[in-house]
Amino acid sequence: MSDLESALQDGDQPELRTWLRLLTCSTLIEQQVRSHLRRRFNTTLPRFDMLAQLDRGQNLTMSELSNRLMVSNGNVTGLIERLVKEGLVSRSPAPDDRRSQMVRLTSKGQRAFDAMLPVHNGWIEDMIGGLSGAEMKQLLALLAKLKNSLIDAKQTGDLT
Amino acid sequence: MSDLESALQDGDQPELRTWLRLLTCSTLIEQQVRSHLRRRFNTTLPRFDMLAQLDRGQNLTMSELSNRLMVSNGNVTGLIERLVKEGLVSRSPAPDDRRSQMVRLTSKGQRAFDAMLPVHNGWIEDMIGGLSGAEMKQLLALLAKLKNSLIDAKQTGDLT
Repeated sequence: MSDLESALQDGDQPELRTWLRLLTCSTLIEQQVRSHLRRRFNTTLPRFDMLAQLDRGQNLTMSELSNRLMVSNGNVTGLIERLVKEGLVSRSPAPDDRRSQMVRLTSKGQRAFDAMLPVHNGWIEDMIGGLSGAEMKQLLALLAKLKNSLIDAKQTGDLT
Repeated sequence: MSDLESALQDGDQPELRTWLRLLTCSTLIEQQVRSHLRRRFNTTLPRFDMLAQLDRGQNLTMSELSNRLMVSNGNVTGLIERLVKEGLVSRSPAPDDRRSQMVRLTSKGQRAFDAMLPVHNGWIEDMIGGLSGAEMKQLLALLAKLKNSLIDAKQTGDLT
């Protein structure tokens, strides 16, 4: 099978190899989740991810949703508008700042999400199930360290 | 800072946590590389990735490029057409199958890529530099195991 790592050569820096292997893994998971969501629930990954955020944090502002989903405000606004039209989420002005809007699941949205969540989590368990509990713990610790390194680099980059 | 992990709760399965942390890391790297490429070279990540594949594997077919970049054939075709117009890549019929096309860098494309590569690799080194050599080696081994698990799950999924 060819993937993003196929062009790497022996002398390549381990940082580049780490990045391409990480991206290969996350792309493989994302493609499988997208395909399962389409086939099983006729829905998309951005929609599922948005409902998942709202399930866990009722009453989030648009900009908090944009931070959590790591996408632009424009993307969040467009998606929320479609979900409002379908009756899955509702918006109301924030009590402490009337210019910003709070978003929450409607009971229809909650039911739709509750039907998808256990099935989704089963896919993730199957995909990652090749790792033992101890390996997953080790991987989580290394990724936590990597994440800190990435946040540091981002802050340095934002200042320059 | 909020990210994809913000909504996780203590009782959540480690597989879900692993997936969201992995996606947070790859999104953080991708966003920084995109922003650096735009600011420094006025170019995009898909263009850089395509030139990188062609730099390493001269004379690739469209479908091999699509496999390596893990994107659809349609995406590859559109991007290659733009790069041909700009004189960065050239196409020719494959010697053994005249219906398929081989793609390669022109010397202008090679020069453009050679100017970007060391700078790009410096960004990656800076971002991932918070991990020691031993940690990177451990992370690479765990991600290799994860990748195998994901490929197995994909093959099972494709058969059902």
